[in-house]
Amino acid sequence: MVYGALDIGGTKIAGALVDAEGRVVARAQRPTPARESAQSMMAAVNSVVDELAARPEWGALSCLGIGSAGPVDTFAGTVSPVNIPSWRSFPLVERVRNHPAVAGGVEPVLVGDAVAMAAAEHWVGAAKGAANALCMVVSTGVGAGLILGGSLHAGTTGNAGHIGHITVDQNGPVCPCGARGCVERYASGTAIAAHALKAGWVPPDGLPATAREVGISAQEGDPRALAAFDRAGRALAAAIAATAALVELDLVVVGGGVSQAGDVLFGPLRHHLGSFAVLDFTRDLPVVPAGLALDAGLIGAAAVGGAASGLFRAGAGGLTVT
Amino acid sequence: MVYGALDIGGTKIAGALVDAEGRVVARAQRPTPARESAQSMMAAVNSVVDELAARPEWGALSCLGIGSAGPVDTFAGTVSPVNIPSWRSFPLVERVRNHPAVAGGVEPVLVGDAVAMAAAEHWVGAAKGAANALCMVVSTGVGAGLILGGSLHAGTTGNAGHIGHITVDQNGPVCPCGARGCVERYASGTAIAAHALKAGWVPPDGLPATAREVGISAQEGDPRALAAFDRAGRALAAAIAATAALVELDLVVVGGGVSQAGDVLFGPLRHHLGSFAVLDFTRDLPVVPAGLALDAGLIGAAAVGGAASGLFRAGAGGLTVT
Repeated sequence: MVYGALDIGGTKIAGALVDAEGRVVARAQRPTPARESAQSMMAAVNSVVDELAARPEWGALSCLGIGSAGPVDTFAGTVSPVNIPSWRSFPLVERVRNHPAVAGGVEPVLVGDAVAMAAAEHWVGAAKGAANALCMVVSTGVGAGLILGGSLHAGTTGNAGHIGHITVDQNGPVCPCGARGCVERYASGTAIAAHALKAGWVPPDGLPATAREVGISAQEGDPRALAAFDRAGRALAAAIAATAALVELDLVVVGGGVSQAGDVLFGPLRHHLGSFAVLDFTRDLPVVPAGLALDAGLIGAAAVGGAASGLFRAGAGGLTVT
Repeated sequence: MVYGALDIGGTKIAGALVDAEGRVVARAQRPTPARESAQSMMAAVNSVVDELAARPEWGALSCLGIGSAGPVDTFAGTVSPVNIPSWRSFPLVERVRNHPAVAGGVEPVLVGDAVAMAAAEHWVGAAKGAANALCMVVSTGVGAGLILGGSLHAGTTGNAGHIGHITVDQNGPVCPCGARGCVERYASGTAIAAHALKAGWVPPDGLPATAREVGISAQEGDPRALAAFDRAGRALAAAIAATAALVELDLVVVGGGVSQAGDVLFGPLRHHLGSFAVLDFTRDLPVVPAGLALDAGLIGAAAVGGAASGLFRAGAGGLTVT
């Protein structure tokens, strides 16, 4: 038995066959033709499916999960990824279902990419065994997925855990989403780099002004770089505390490119969490780095496909979808 | 079959027997000896149970739910109500279990009072039939409970939905809880009255400076009173939008004393929600007044007792506890 997975991102379209222990046993990948037509996009997806379907393991396919950059609407089976303009309310589930190697077989299951990554962390990563966990991706944007009562809480449209656009300062800067003081205005890689630059930080030796370079400067003690990470950590802490108060959490997992900065992010985040998470049932909440890296999106899509298809319900402590 | 219920508040200790349609068929009540010893408090609870146990319907008792002012710890079965100083980590579940009329029969189930009220609204109130709802109590404090996937999400310790202490302004005023910019600093009855007074509002004719009087002044067009309700509505809107982004909601129900102000609260709340809830899956979220009033705590405690005892699982669309 293998689990099929597709991961639709702004840079690449990846596919995999994943075994029952969450290991990738086959992999296919195409660059995302993000600026091309909806048809060209779908052709790239079909090509990934073709390659996977040619593998002998395909005969043992038991489910097919699709993680996609958002917004997604899992109820409608459609995706509208911000960075893929030709796909707006694109019926991805229907199109994948109609692929000759899929039709009449497994039913594709769609989920947002951050929710998929949470599913992966819960299945075989840092949130394994946690009953109630927030699994975050802090990268170009900030996203997350929720595990509640031992199950993935994807939400009606597959967008639950959208922590990047909750307001931590109702009088804060306007966000491109239209609201004010969203977590992403402080904690995304873009926001961290912008804040450091504004404070006078200069990337070394003509390197790009990215959060990665700010992180290296922070590790070297640059106060402007440290301040940008402190600001990010504080906003993340306020948002994590809010989530813990709303649903009760046992664990927070933080992954994504920005989390690679390590202690310069986790230090301030944990420090400020001590100020914001002060209720009896929110205090001393552990915050740990993600356990998976590159293939988390694929492993998570496989997990969601398996959970939605009931494959995990029989297993002890397995993932279910609410 | 009847459902037993206890509701422990700072003012009164109430008990009820509730039928399968959510109607109170018997009721008992004592004033809360809030400043007396733990023993006096428990004597009042026992007296309420005695009175209920003397009713003929007690013979058909199928469960016993206890709603209590918080903090509660449903995992430990203990309560530490802020306004009842003699009860700190008080083993209420064990004590009720040991009451002669209970011992060996039903197993008492504890839940926080706001979560109980959410259960009541979901069972027979304004959230009936909703799969994902936030049910709020805006009163002296601000609390809430969550319905997720058709079930009450009480959280590991029965405190989920604690929306009064999520941060909507990370640079805002310090809250007695220790955090900053909590919703209660803006939207509780106490905060509304304090803000109106600070702006120069004076309660009419020697009446007390309460949110109720501010509400009446606002209905009469007093700009300082209106501003206090606008400020409250804006903080509630930011918090509701955050909750919707985190878990996906179909409905928000707002009850409690402050909500009796009606349009002067609901108007600004809905207006600001339009600014904060702007994602595809959070937009146009309905916000409605609570359907139940006085007995919501008792009906909700009965609902939680029934759900935890599995009585609802058999019924279509019934309440379950996660």
